[in-house]
Amino acid sequence: MGHHHKISADQPDPSSSTATTSQSSGSAPITVDIHTHTYPPSYISLLTSRTKVPYIHQPSDGDPRLIILPSDDDPSKPPHLRGRPVDKSYSSWDEKLKFMRTHGISLSVVSLANPWLDFLPSETAADTARQINDDLNAACESQNAKGDKHAQLYAFASLPLSAPTEQIVAEIRRLESLSCVKGIILGTTGLGAGLDDPFLAEIWTALEDTQTMIFLHPHYGLPDAAFGGPEVIARSGHVLPLALGFPLETTIAVARMFLAGVFDRHSRLRMLLAHSGGTLPFLAGRIQSCVEHEREFVANGGDKQGPTRTVWDVLGTNIWLDAVIYGKAGLKAAVEAAGAVGQGIEGSERLMFGTDHPFFPPLKEKDGRWASVDSNLAAIAGVAGAEEEVARKILGGNALRVLGIEI
Amino acid sequence: MGHHHKISADQPDPSSSTATTSQSSGSAPITVDIHTHTYPPSYISLLTSRTKVPYIHQPSDGDPRLIILPSDDDPSKPPHLRGRPVDKSYSSWDEKLKFMRTHGISLSVVSLANPWLDFLPSETAADTARQINDDLNAACESQNAKGDKHAQLYAFASLPLSAPTEQIVAEIRRLESLSCVKGIILGTTGLGAGLDDPFLAEIWTALEDTQTMIFLHPHYGLPDAAFGGPEVIARSGHVLPLALGFPLETTIAVARMFLAGVFDRHSRLRMLLAHSGGTLPFLAGRIQSCVEHEREFVANGGDKQGPTRTVWDVLGTNIWLDAVIYGKAGLKAAVEAAGAVGQGIEGSERLMFGTDHPFFPPLKEKDGRWASVDSNLAAIAGVAGAEEEVARKILGGNALRVLGIEI
Repeated sequence: MGHHHKISADQPDPSSSTATTSQSSGSAPITVDIHTHTYPPSYISLLTSRTKVPYIHQPSDGDPRLIILPSDDDPSKPPHLRGRPVDKSYSSWDEKLKFMRTHGISLSVVSLANPWLDFLPSETAADTARQINDDLNAACESQNAKGDKHAQLYAFASLPLSAPTEQIVAEIRRLESLSCVKGIILGTTGLGAGLDDPFLAEIWTALEDTQTMIFLHPHYGLPDAAFGGPEVIARSGHVLPLALGFPLETTIAVARMFLAGVFDRHSRLRMLLAHSGGTLPFLAGRIQSCVEHEREFVANGGDKQGPTRTVWDVLGTNIWLDAVIYGKAGLKAAVEAAGAVGQGIEGSERLMFGTDHPFFPPLKEKDGRWASVDSNLAAIAGVAGAEEEVARKILGGNALRVLGIEI
Repeated sequence: MGHHHKISADQPDPSSSTATTSQSSGSAPITVDIHTHTYPPSYISLLTSRTKVPYIHQPSDGDPRLIILPSDDDPSKPPHLRGRPVDKSYSSWDEKLKFMRTHGISLSVVSLANPWLDFLPSETAADTARQINDDLNAACESQNAKGDKHAQLYAFASLPLSAPTEQIVAEIRRLESLSCVKGIILGTTGLGAGLDDPFLAEIWTALEDTQTMIFLHPHYGLPDAAFGGPEVIARSGHVLPLALGFPLETTIAVARMFLAGVFDRHSRLRMLLAHSGGTLPFLAGRIQSCVEHEREFVANGGDKQGPTRTVWDVLGTNIWLDAVIYGKAGLKAAVEAAGAVGQGIEGSERLMFGTDHPFFPPLKEKDGRWASVDSNLAAIAGVAGAEEEVARKILGGNALRVLGIEI
């Protein structure tokens, strides 16, 4: 991940209030998309070679279908109607660059879509991860070599989590040699038992040592029973799992890390949370209050360890948030929660614009701007108000600074 | 619920920016607690008469234990160690009034703690509800007859949800005759199948016709599997179910109502959501975006009805939020979401101070102020900033106006 790019992201940007950098007032803001997915050809091949979830089914009489969730694999439907069509936007760099041009995005940090490489057999996982990460890095290098500063690509790599620990750690260290890799994307199950699993300690340490940004992203949702069962869910299509299941999954995963003391033992972790943290910014106060009132924690006279740092401290030190929240109300909470501790860093320096492309496309007119993107831009404009510098940071300045990217 | 008190709460308070009422600038703000629970003697008797959840166990050799959740009834523990001790703060009016004095609360709108009357046998449910609601009303009347305007009590009643529908509707209408009853408290399961259950239609209509405020409160949480199972939960005591399970339950319940079109068919419903709406203010943008991108909804060419109103419209018309959120970040989102539609009403006119007493007591020094209360007060002060009128409304002005209470 290019050592020459490495700067401390725990310090405020010294240039943020001056006019000495490319991000200075006066010039148009640079827009960076840090939440945008791709299925590179080697990943498409991998999914097509499989016959169980996750997989791509190629029917003889139609377009290929992507089936990534058990609930997509509805046995009452013939395979050519399960899941969703694999649109060319899923793997085409031209489509990604066209989408970027349409929305004035100069730089995208792409990541594999869920479920990444969580499902690989242990023996081949590390090889497969290397191949896919190399492919992704090569595609970005090739694009960047064209020299168009308004069409740059970088990537979050994927880890072979089913491989032996030393192979996972080796891949984390190897990623430092890939010039366009700026972090990793990670699901909420870790090695299978969640992110509070003690067996993750070596991996957290490697991620701390390399100061790798961990983009935490949901995939598994909540059990159907949380919504009242599959029949209740089906009444409103994908809304309940997508609108609520995803963010609640992220919230629970980070809360479990926090409560288990992962951020106490690994205080230099750097995590970027998808969807503005799920609901963490909103619930941070309640989580902290419950911790301070939990009789079973040692601090309150009990026999369980409990976290020693506060959730506000973790939010202000270890966590960054994307701005994929589709509304000013959520973004206000995210900025406020991110800056509650202060430490000289404004909350708005921890938020980063994203789109979730190729998901949430317009359902009718395909070629114009996407309403999902515009609602995120409107939220940023609404929160920034007259403070142009705040919008500039959230739109791209923070991503460039925190990920160590020079345009 | 005293017809003379009924005013339209869907209109902005004409006095809110003038100095013509008892809530005018200059006088000390009146603090009203709309989220505060009690176990009146008839409810304690009912729970003590039972031997399965929910129940109170009276061991021969110790204090009575309250067991309200299946997870409290841990069979590995002897009954005298299950659940929690029933402190006198649970049923004592003196304790409630003392707590109010300590925190400068002039008026409390008390409600039964969960699980209310959800568990009653169908045949006796209506009689039991009448008795408990009458007891609660009588206790409030008796206190208010003392004429101390800084120690007033009102109540949210409970419905006999297991009774035949006509008996539930009859109780809703009867509550209008109880001078201190200002609404009802309701759990998220409704008649057992959730709040999107079509069998609730007659009940929603009765609640609309009487313009009854429905205080929606969680109790059932999420399935253990959502948190990784009971062993993961147990590592941090009650934090996961209490900090996350409760607010996520509320969010899912209201989202199901919204997606099923309940607010379309019952557009005059009035709901006060516990814990600032669970996470609804934070996720409202994502919910609305998912609705607008859901291919299965009729509006997008599918065959499922989907909601016709927006979540922002519902938030700005049908929903009020308590301010039990323990932090400025969450409260900012709540105020913003509540006022997104506008319609002449500021978001801050839809928020109401609450404490969740007798829960979240201090663990050490029992007699002083409660940190849980102070963190809610600090959040209100933080959001209001220099706008004294905003703090005044959230602290009590909104509750008095919306519930139609004259001091």
